[in-house]
Amino acid sequence: MSKQKYNTIHYKNYLALDEILSAQNLKSAAEPDGPAHDEMLFIIIHQVYELWFKQIIHELEWIIRAFEGDSVDERNIGTAVDRLERILEILKVLIAQIRILETMTPLDFLDFRNYLFPASGFQSFQFRKVEAMLGLKSDTRMTYNEQHYTIPFTSEEAKELDEIESNKSLFELVAAWLERTPFLEFKEFNFLSKYHEAVDHMLQKERKAIDESEFLGVEEKAMRIRMLEGTDNYFQTVMDKDFHELQVEKGEARLSYKATVAALLINLYRDEPILHLPYNFLERILDIDEYVTMWRYRHAQMVLRMLGKKVGTGGSSGYDYLAKTAQKHHIFRDFHNISTLLIPRSELPELPVHLRKELGFYFTQKVLDD
Amino acid sequence: MSKQKYNTIHYKNYLALDEILSAQNLKSAAEPDGPAHDEMLFIIIHQVYELWFKQIIHELEWIIRAFEGDSVDERNIGTAVDRLERILEILKVLIAQIRILETMTPLDFLDFRNYLFPASGFQSFQFRKVEAMLGLKSDTRMTYNEQHYTIPFTSEEAKELDEIESNKSLFELVAAWLERTPFLEFKEFNFLSKYHEAVDHMLQKERKAIDESEFLGVEEKAMRIRMLEGTDNYFQTVMDKDFHELQVEKGEARLSYKATVAALLINLYRDEPILHLPYNFLERILDIDEYVTMWRYRHAQMVLRMLGKKVGTGGSSGYDYLAKTAQKHHIFRDFHNISTLLIPRSELPELPVHLRKELGFYFTQKVLDD
Amino acid sequence: MSKQKYNTIHYKNYLALDEILSAQNLKSAAEPDGPAHDEMLFIIIHQVYELWFKQIIHELEWIIRAFEGDSVDERNIGTAVDRLERILEILKVLIAQIRILETMTPLDFLDFRNYLFPASGFQSFQFRKVEAMLGLKSDTRMTYNEQHYTIPFTSEEAKELDEIESNKSLFELVAAWLERTPFLEFKEFNFLSKYHEAVDHMLQKERKAIDESEFLGVEEKAMRIRMLEGTDNYFQTVMDKDFHELQVEKGEARLSYKATVAALLINLYRDEPILHLPYNFLERILDIDEYVTMWRYRHAQMVLRMLGKKVGTGGSSGYDYLAKTAQKHHIFRDFHNISTLLIPRSELPELPVHLRKELGFYFTQKVLDD
Amino acid sequence: MSKQKYNTIHYKNYLALDEILSAQNLKSAAEPDGPAHDEMLFIIIHQVYELWFKQIIHELEWIIRAFEGDSVDERNIGTAVDRLERILEILKVLIAQIRILETMTPLDFLDFRNYLFPASGFQSFQFRKVEAMLGLKSDTRMTYNEQHYTIPFTSEEAKELDEIESNKSLFELVAAWLERTPFLEFKEFNFLSKYHEAVDHMLQKERKAIDESEFLGVEEKAMRIRMLEGTDNYFQTVMDKDFHELQVEKGEARLSYKATVAALLINLYRDEPILHLPYNFLERILDIDEYVTMWRYRHAQMVLRMLGKKVGTGGSSGYDYLAKTAQKHHIFRDFHNISTLLIPRSELPELPVHLRKELGFYFTQKVLDD
Repeated sequence: MSKQKYNTIHYKNYLALDEILSAQNLKSAAEPDGPAHDEMLFIIIHQVYELWFKQIIHELEWIIRAFEGDSVDERNIGTAVDRLERILEILKVLIAQIRILETMTPLDFLDFRNYLFPASGFQSFQFRKVEAMLGLKSDTRMTYNEQHYTIPFTSEEAKELDEIESNKSLFELVAAWLERTPFLEFKEFNFLSKYHEAVDHMLQKERKAIDESEFLGVEEKAMRIRMLEGTDNYFQTVMDKDFHELQVEKGEARLSYKATVAALLINLYRDEPILHLPYNFLERILDIDEYVTMWRYRHAQMVLRMLGKKVGTGGSSGYDYLAKTAQKHHIFRDFHNISTLLIPRSELPELPVHLRKELGFYFTQKVLDD
Repeated sequence: MSKQKYNTIHYKNYLALDEILSAQNLKSAAEPDGPAHDEMLFIIIHQVYELWFKQIIHELEWIIRAFEGDSVDERNIGTAVDRLERILEILKVLIAQIRILETMTPLDFLDFRNYLFPASGFQSFQFRKVEAMLGLKSDTRMTYNEQHYTIPFTSEEAKELDEIESNKSLFELVAAWLERTPFLEFKEFNFLSKYHEAVDHMLQKERKAIDESEFLGVEEKAMRIRMLEGTDNYFQTVMDKDFHELQVEKGEARLSYKATVAALLINLYRDEPILHLPYNFLERILDIDEYVTMWRYRHAQMVLRMLGKKVGTGGSSGYDYLAKTAQKHHIFRDFHNISTLLIPRSELPELPVHLRKELGFYFTQKVLDD
Repeated sequence: MSKQKYNTIHYKNYLALDEILSAQNLKSAAEPDGPAHDEMLFIIIHQVYELWFKQIIHELEWIIRAFEGDSVDERNIGTAVDRLERILEILKVLIAQIRILETMTPLDFLDFRNYLFPASGFQSFQFRKVEAMLGLKSDTRMTYNEQHYTIPFTSEEAKELDEIESNKSLFELVAAWLERTPFLEFKEFNFLSKYHEAVDHMLQKERKAIDESEFLGVEEKAMRIRMLEGTDNYFQTVMDKDFHELQVEKGEARLSYKATVAALLINLYRDEPILHLPYNFLERILDIDEYVTMWRYRHAQMVLRMLGKKVGTGGSSGYDYLAKTAQKHHIFRDFHNISTLLIPRSELPELPVHLRKELGFYFTQKVLDD
Repeated sequence: MSKQKYNTIHYKNYLALDEILSAQNLKSAAEPDGPAHDEMLFIIIHQVYELWFKQIIHELEWIIRAFEGDSVDERNIGTAVDRLERILEILKVLIAQIRILETMTPLDFLDFRNYLFPASGFQSFQFRKVEAMLGLKSDTRMTYNEQHYTIPFTSEEAKELDEIESNKSLFELVAAWLERTPFLEFKEFNFLSKYHEAVDHMLQKERKAIDESEFLGVEEKAMRIRMLEGTDNYFQTVMDKDFHELQVEKGEARLSYKATVAALLINLYRDEPILHLPYNFLERILDIDEYVTMWRYRHAQMVLRMLGKKVGTGGSSGYDYLAKTAQKHHIFRDFHNISTLLIPRSELPELPVHLRKELGFYFTQKVLDD
């Protein structure tokens, strides 16, 4: 324990409030009529955003470090879930506080907007860093004004972004972790072939139920059979390795075949104790993805409200560009598509007893066995 | 006062809880394994949505009634603002409670999803009613599976939707109310010509500042002058009546020229006491618009998460369709574009003294005059 | 327009991000095992709180300035309402983000808690300033450890707090503004006597309805008559000037008799155009009051969760103290009590025609009259 | 699969919307002036509350069933966590939607309030059921008007509440589950004695650091030593079995000594894979507890705003009563107090290797061992 510990400390110094609270330099203060009242809000809310970005980066750095290397310590999955939950709570607040900025009306903004040119949110280094850490690659980024996204940054900052991109992102680390899932083949239990059988059985049962239904007319039966065939076809192609790899090549999927199968297995057998935590981890990734997308969308809405069709302070086309990033910069979209491959619990291939035992907690099993 | 008043009343009867709480009929109860646990949530959350839709309709009906006819009673603007605020608070809750539904995972949904076919949110009569009351017209609706949107409804319901469409919607009533704004020309004060002068003055000043800047290089100056010309061009065309009417004809604008000018005036001179309430009213319309759009977007996200690329229970293409409605069914978009026409307060043409007086409250003025 | 305007500006410099993002000095960095992961969150969330406090103070300063002096410019009421709404949105975020701090568990907190002693939220100068500006007086503050609340501050800070207290607070300025309401007596219309008549009439009607009810038994009738007498008594005493002044003397009420009557009038006749804005202003004051109280309560809950019965970092008794401030530091409680004095619209004394005219907007009236 | 499955189903019928949407019977419809506009909101929001209560009960019933009996299936802990999270999301919405009700002002409420007598939220059977299922006992309930809380209910309802109370509540089941935790004594590892040693060591180290500090003056040292002795004393008494049992007898604690120790162990060693889920379960219980309390508090605030000091529609004293229940009906308070017993991770007694192995996942260990 350091001796420093018993140095008396004051809230103000601990939080460096002298620095923090004197960092609001209103450009409109140069106006003859004095500063525009609302510029204070504009500065403070952006400073708050940047503070939260710093915290998100702090959490992501830890998670990325924990997932680097050849294996992930089991204890770290739980901590990673907790840290993703924290990021999620931060994202909720980032979205909610857009409402504070909306109390500044377009007319109020005009009182100081001219001073900001060409400063713009596009110049937020930390936000770019978050995107890159999550897994956004520069070649899939929409360009704005055909400019590379690192243009607004110093050469060191640009270099840091490049390095983050060349290192493994959260997307890639999660994919690699999924690929290492040990249960895909387990002695006589081959998950994929069992799964294919189950899908076939489910679709046949469904077809029989349609054929025998007393409620459906001829046309309706035909229509539903066609739908069923569509579903069948979907399952066949999606679960086909070659087809999947073709999709990846064409850039329509990003998650490898093996990682997809592992994510499917975790989703289907998540009730097994050992898979519960990995399942939670995947769910939190989806949450983060959903809220980052929502943040992009809300941001776009706010810009529409503030600027209408006008270009943004940095010359950006504003609303249209931002609204599109919600779609195009959607990093974990492949994880949503796992949903399409799920089958009802009642159709799930049963696990062999000894595998279920291995998937349970040793202690519990031992107690029950004794 | 009715004598009924002193009839003892019980919470349960007042709220018809016997009916409300026995209206959850789980289809999956027919399964051999008994009902799916999560079907209860699925039913209850949709019932809650429908109850809130009923409340939104109740408020919209009042507002529409208040705005029908040749003039709006001044007292009703205040009440209309309050009721729009209530709708807004309801929309916030509708969006927030999507998070409750997201605690049901895709796998849980599969446990009863087959039973619901072809029931679907597309069959919500009340939601269609809300859309029509706000101002969505069937010819601008995106069709789903090339079906007219009234197909899922009974002939009476379809007729009711048709009638709502043929009556004036909130959009049309607000537009008509704007067109009646009495201050656009007032004795010697012509708002539009004064506004044009102000725009010209502002742009000239800006150009001079660029020319004389010691901070800008030659290229930067040229670039900014080009941007300024773009802005100039924008103001010229947008404020041109013929141009505007052409846009309306082509379907790229919906709000009439006169209503647009009135909305602009209200936005610019909102600090005048008499215009404060109309301004609030327009702001609340924008809020409603923003939150309806956000609700559509969140709904789409939730469907993506639940179904992936799968088609919805009613055969709907799900995510893609819903995400597009957020853009295409954006009813009050013209009101956002007013922002583009605003000029800073410092450039605002000053109102003649007697007009400012008329725009103030009589009582206050009288007291000050005496 | 300043020439500075065309100086190129970068997002990072504008927001002073070098200062802001380097102001997180983790005390636990001195530990042999390196810094505690969660200390970053602890520092950042408090810095965010302080930034928002600065914004709240910025808004309150404007409102207080606008309400100082002998009269309030009518235009400023609208702006004051907007600024109170902004404070309200900030308070909502302050409350919501407690959830972020709750992702730090008590065990995580222990990793660096020892370093903070005796720093504590009690040392937040800005929060004390907000309280004093709203109207909290040092003699009604609960003391903690019998220490005066300015003890943790420098002599300049303490002096500033004293000055704020000796100047008029928002509470006092709103009270003074209410006392100046001009409509309490208006030619032949005396609001208070009309109001008393209406209360009497209402209570007599009620008594008759009870007497004649066929639904109520003898006992129930007697019970309800007793309740009615209680209500009657309440109205009599509360509306009695001497009684009210006694309450003020005893410290059980704070708002003067005249201000109370004015607030009642504004609440009852808020549908009159000229009173709509004053009514909105009073509602927003109530909102602020409610959310400040809720913030205190949530803060207390969070402390209970983090520390249990332990004393806080500054030696504060934590939960119990904070939970009590939600009750005792409730500044605008008198405004809630106006509700008790309201009577149904159907019982409202009608305003004389010429008064209603004066309460409407001159322009509207004139148009209608012509 | 039932044949019913292929019966075509319509959204409206599935959700019983004819029943749900015709269940709003406005009492004020009997008024000569027609129904009060806001009574619709009052009915609908209460119906929504009751629907959500039904859902909460549905989840609690499952959890209670899963925890009855002599052991809890490991898989059910994960599901129980998910269901507690659902209840939590519902509670968040219940709290958020109070804001909708607050758009109804006290004056609006007066337009129909008289009709409701003596109906009151105290007559919500489902809410009482939720409280009883969580663990509130009638003998610790605050009475209102000295009436037993089941008075407003039918004899069957009262009987059902009695039965729920006599069965095990969530509190009791969680306590019993904690008492069964198998790791408290494990071969040579006795958790409690190791914990006591760690506490002693920590306090001695602390005392030494104070003694040797160069920053603290004589007085400050003395003060801190006194504080340390307070802490020491606290740990000694709280961890003393006899003392704890005395507290339980006196009604100042409710959780048994053994369950308290188990909860402490789970909190301290939550990073061990096998304890992660139990820890999450306890955290979610705390969340539920916190949000139920917050709901009580917000409800009280809303009543204060609506009724001031007036008594509620059921004759209840309103605000004061409700605000007190937030404190007195605080069911899981003992779980918050565990925080007080935590010690920093750096002071945690290390687990013997073989125990850590048992606490890990068998599969992982096996792979690592091979």
